[in-house]
Formats: sequence, structure tokens, C-alpha cells
Amino acid sequence: MITDVMKYDTVALDDENNAVVIIDQTLLPGRTELISLTTAKEIWDAIYLLKVRGAPAIGVAAAMGIYILSKQLDTEDFEVFYKKFCEYKEYLDSSRPTAVNLSWALKRMEATALRAGREEQKSVAEVKEILHMEAVRIRDEDIQVCRKIGENALLLVKPGDGILTHCNAGKLAAVRYGTATAPIYLGQERGYGFRVFADETRPLLQGARLTAFELFASGVDVTLICDNMSASVMAGGLVQAVFVGCDRVAANGDTANKIGTSVVAAVAKYYDVPVYICAPTSTIDMATPTGAEIVIEQRPSHEVTDMWYRERMAPEGVKVYNPAFDVTGHDLISGIVTEYGIARAPYTESLKEIMERKQRGGQSAESGAVPQGAEPAAGSR
Amino acid sequence: MITDVMKYDTVALDDENNAVVIIDQTLLPGRTELISLTTAKEIWDAIYLLKVRGAPAIGVAAAMGIYILSKQLDTEDFEVFYKKFCEYKEYLDSSRPTAVNLSWALKRMEATALRAGREEQKSVAEVKEILHMEAVRIRDEDIQVCRKIGENALLLVKPGDGILTHCNAGKLAAVRYGTATAPIYLGQERGYGFRVFADETRPLLQGARLTAFELFASGVDVTLICDNMSASVMAGGLVQAVFVGCDRVAANGDTANKIGTSVVAAVAKYYDVPVYICAPTSTIDMATPTGAEIVIEQRPSHEVTDMWYRERMAPEGVKVYNPAFDVTGHDLISGIVTEYGIARAPYTESLKEIMERKQRGGQSAESGAVPQGAEPAAGSR
Repeated sequence: MITDVMKYDTVALDDENNAVVIIDQTLLPGRTELISLTTAKEIWDAIYLLKVRGAPAIGVAAAMGIYILSKQLDTEDFEVFYKKFCEYKEYLDSSRPTAVNLSWALKRMEATALRAGREEQKSVAEVKEILHMEAVRIRDEDIQVCRKIGENALLLVKPGDGILTHCNAGKLAAVRYGTATAPIYLGQERGYGFRVFADETRPLLQGARLTAFELFASGVDVTLICDNMSASVMAGGLVQAVFVGCDRVAANGDTANKIGTSVVAAVAKYYDVPVYICAPTSTIDMATPTGAEIVIEQRPSHEVTDMWYRERMAPEGVKVYNPAFDVTGHDLISGIVTEYGIARAPYTESLKEIMERKQRGGQSAESGAVPQGAEPAAGSR
Repeated sequence: MITDVMKYDTVALDDENNAVVIIDQTLLPGRTELISLTTAKEIWDAIYLLKVRGAPAIGVAAAMGIYILSKQLDTEDFEVFYKKFCEYKEYLDSSRPTAVNLSWALKRMEATALRAGREEQKSVAEVKEILHMEAVRIRDEDIQVCRKIGENALLLVKPGDGILTHCNAGKLAAVRYGTATAPIYLGQERGYGFRVFADETRPLLQGARLTAFELFASGVDVTLICDNMSASVMAGGLVQAVFVGCDRVAANGDTANKIGTSVVAAVAKYYDVPVYICAPTSTIDMATPTGAEIVIEQRPSHEVTDMWYRERMAPEGVKVYNPAFDVTGHDLISGIVTEYGIARAPYTESLKEIMERKQRGGQSAESGAVPQGAEPAAGSR
């Protein structure tokens, strides 16, 4: 069971049965189960209860969800259709208000519906098919972005290397490949024989519950470590590169990611191990000049003192500091790997060039010129 | 209750009632209870079951234990007394075979008994009283060593400073003061108003269960953090010094201590925060040239995947790397604080000088000359 489930996408469309099929992540790592979501309430619950999590996966689930719901609307009148569509959209959007990808995907689906139904005066049946294609496109784009990041990141390591990763920027956060895990899975397909170390990632243990799970279930040589063991494995020469995901990259390369990333990065610097951020360009925020402008969310203390445990593990009343993220300074980062190539210091220039490549359109990802600091995407080599 | 218990020593002698009184550490942090150990079985169990833990505390408990047991032997014949004494000694010694301080304390008590009873031909009643004094001396020496380390370490910080510590090198591992916590408690007595950050210290959580507990119960301003949050508090300028204990210091200053210490040290180096090792000279091993010669114990994987949890938090069968200790390179250490003063780089010279001071005898701790790299003890300022 454990090995079978990883053959499936994290989020998939079962059009015939009007269902979104997901791997229920709340049961991991103990139980692996595919579940079919068919009603608005089921989709809402799945997002709210974190059965599906990770920005890209949530976006895809929402896009597929609103497609299967609106597909079943029984009307030929676009305005009637659209009114109901918007009700579904608002309902799904309320399942996780802080998830940017959720509202992004739903807005994109809405814009698609409006363009087809109002501007282009398509029939409701045609609008439904266009929404179908758009949901599939959102999924395919995620897969393609992850795969390109994987191809680019793979240029940075060689067969047999040790790779350390933190938190879960894995397949389970996306549809296929993941971001930080993309080079690992591509390497796996090509027999690179990586040895991977997964930080357990306190306090929410995404590394133990999700990353160690998905890599192990996929047959990757993965070893689970506590977050405070990164120095031990690096000192032993067991790690040649660190790959992590990110929540937001500032214009100067400072990167916000799961708490503990900057600890890994400082340790890696001491042991002279390169740290690579795997960042879809959607996470690069050129409007944020540096990491200092990124606000760090503080989370409740019970996550540190009580969560997962049989009994409380710290004295009642003690203060707890529990930031959700930290900011890794650009000076600790050896490269930022995007679907449009690898940005290198100085990031203010290389990230700008990456974003310009993106503006110039899709094929630049394959054939961009090489600016100062920014390496071309793997496809152009 | 929680604040009261910290008024007591971790290990104390109740001579009137023939008992060793300890804080039962297996109940922490949920419940704080003093328990009286009166039989050999109770003392053995307390050490075996980790009700008393920490090298100095175990040594003191064993010394007091063998005193109260042999005190109750009903004979005037030293050889009969000694035979029974040795039975007790071997029994207690078997409670935790790897605890060096346990056999060290018991051997010292045996040598004391032999010298008094055989060499000096004292009566059994006199031998018992000499054993009493020796047990008290072992306790007092621990308190004095910790206090001197505290005095010396206090020279390295100023009122209002933020201090980060890892694992538990606290009062609960010793009798009073602890080692890494000694400057914190002395500062507390003097109104220094330190803000302390305690790493929870995965996987055994000594920082959450013990350090956060004892500091909080003592009224210290302590904040619990996960091990992967040290960079966040340092980046925020909240930490002016790191104080940690140690298991063994090599002749070149490389230091073995609880897993994660070298992570803290590498992070502190990046943020330019000094790292101080609080090391009784008993932990300095001049026969070990460097940290490379220190063998690191590997511990079972269930400590990472299952321990404390309601259910397993990692996939069945996944590999786990779980070293008990790591070695912090001397280049990451700003000073090694002993009861005979503070050693500074180059440690090969300063540690030698510290050990020579110790050889020259107790008062050198107060008035040692200042060699290259080794600062005098606080008492001489």
C-alpha cells in the first residue's frame, strides 16, 4: 500500500465520477489512503482539515473542485450558471483564507468562466469544457514547473551525492515531483543513487511525517534525522548539497521558508555545503526588497509543548517562541533554482533577469540568454 | 509546589532518617516530588530508572547511598563491614554501568573506607563517620565546582543579556547551580535579569522537560524554543551568549556534548554570538588529542520516531540516524569555563595551564597566574 500510493498524483481529477481524488495527508505516515471528493462540503473539508496541503496542491484541488461542482449545474443560462459558480467559489475560498494559491486558482477559474461565457458568449456546455481544460492546465503547469526546477537543480549535484532537505517541499505539497524533492525524484528515475537526509522539522514534523514518508514510499534512500543533527551528517561528509523550498523570495534573494531553514543554512555555510532554494517564480516577490520586510507569523505554544505527545512535555506556564518561518539571508544561499534557470548572487540582478525571462514567455525557459548571475535553464544546455 | 521544590538540592542527605532525598526527575515537568531512598533496591532503581540523572548528581547519590547503607551495618569487625560494603558497592555500580561518575564516586568511597579501616585501623564507628564526611565532601565539591564555574562565566555576560542553552547542564544534573545554568542562577541571585532561551533538545527533550522546568520554577525569565529556532532568536539580536555543558573536552578544545550543540555553535558563529562551554576540569581529557578520537554513541531509532508520541510520527521501516552526541570544533568555541578559570584559544596551551593549576591544588583556583589564553578564575579579580 505504502509504495503503491506514490504512483498517484497528490491531487487528481476523476472526471468520469465527478471527483477530485487526493492522498489524505492527515492519515500519513501511518495510513495511506486515496479519497474521492465529490461534494462542495467534502472539498471544503479536505482543504480546511489539511487532508490536502501545500500551496500548489491546494490551488490545483480548488481548481479541479470548482470545475466538477460547476460541471454539474443544470442550466443553459450563463448568468444563472455564473451566480452559482460564484457561490461555490466563495465557499471554497473560505476553507483556508491565508492560502494565497487557493484564491489565486479560484480567481483564475472565475476569469476563465467570465471570458468564455460573457465576452465570448460561449454556451454553458462550452464554458464547462473550457473550465475543465483550465483546471487541467493549472495542474499541468504545476507539474511542468516542478519538473523544470528538478531538471535545473539536477545540474548542481552528481550521482551518489548526499542531499539534505528540510520540511516538506515535496510531491505531497504539489501534484508530482515537488520542488525541493524534484531533483531527487528525477535523479531516482535516472539511477543517480542519492542518499537523502530529511530533517524531521519541529514542531509540526512535516519532514518526518511527509518528506520521509514520500521519499521512503518512492524507494529513495532516505534517512530521518532530528533538526539538531544536520551538523553531524555534514561534519561526516555525508551531505553535498541542501535543497529546500520557500514561501517567499525577496528581490535581494533573502528567502522566507519553514522555521529552521536558516539554521540548516548557517550550519551548511560552516561545513562549506551549498544551499539551494527551489523556488517557482510565483514565489519570487520583486516588490519586497529584502527579508527584513517579510512578517513572520507566530504560532501557538501548544504546538511545541503538547502537540503529538501523550502528555505535555514542558512546564505549565512557560513562555514559548514559535515562529512559523524564518528568513535565510541571501549570503547563505548558493543558488535559487527556478523553472526559468538558476539565479546566483548578486540576486538583485539575477532574479530580475529570471523574472524578465518569465515575462518574455514560456520558451525563454528553454533558451534564455545568460545574464550576470543567472544561469540558463537546463533545457538550453 | 513547582516553585517550592527548586529550593531543595537535586540530591540531599537525610542522615537522621538514613535516606537519600532526590527530586524524582521521571515525573518532570508534570509533577514535582521529593522522594526518600532508604534501601539498596530503592537507590539502585532511582539510578537505573533515571529518577536521578546527570553525571555529578549520580555520583553524589551513589556516595550518599553507600554511606547510609553501610552506616546501618551491625558489626564492630572492619573486614565483615568491608565485605558487606563491597557487596553494596557492586550492586549500586551495576545500576548504570556507563555512568563514569557512578563508579568514580563508589571507588572513592571504597578507598576512603579502606584507608580508615585498614591502614589507619579506625573503629567501624569511626569509618562510618569518615564515610559520612566523604559523601558530604563529594557533594560540597560538586556545589563548589559549579559555583566557581558560575562565577567565572558571569564575567562573560552583563545584566539584561540574552543567554541560550542546549540540553540540561542544569541544577537537575548536579546538586545545586548546575554548570551551564550556574551563571544564570548566580545572575538571578544578583538581579542580573537575564532572558534565557532553552532549546527543547530533540529527541529526548531534556531542554523542554528539565531546563525549561528548573529555570521556570526558579523564577528565571525563560523561553522554550525548538532546536531549529536558534537562528531566529539570534537574528533578532536576542542572544548575547551561548552557555552549554559538555561530556568531554579534548586537549585541543574540541568538545563532545549533547547532539545539537555543534548546530547551535555553527549558527552562533554566523550571528557572531560567543559560545562558552561550561566544563568542570573532571571533563577535560588531556589524553584525547582532538574530537576526532571521541566515539559517538548511536541510539535507537524509536527515540526519534515514537518516543513521547501518541502514535508513530515517521513511516515504518525508514532509516533513522540518532547520535547521542556531537563534537563542536574548538574554532567555534569562544571560551571553556572551568572552576579554575576560563580557557581561551589556543586551547592546547590554555587547557594545559588550567590542568596544571588544578594539580597545584585548590587555592590556585583563586589565584592562578594568567597564562597565554587562560584567564584567571573570578575569585582573583
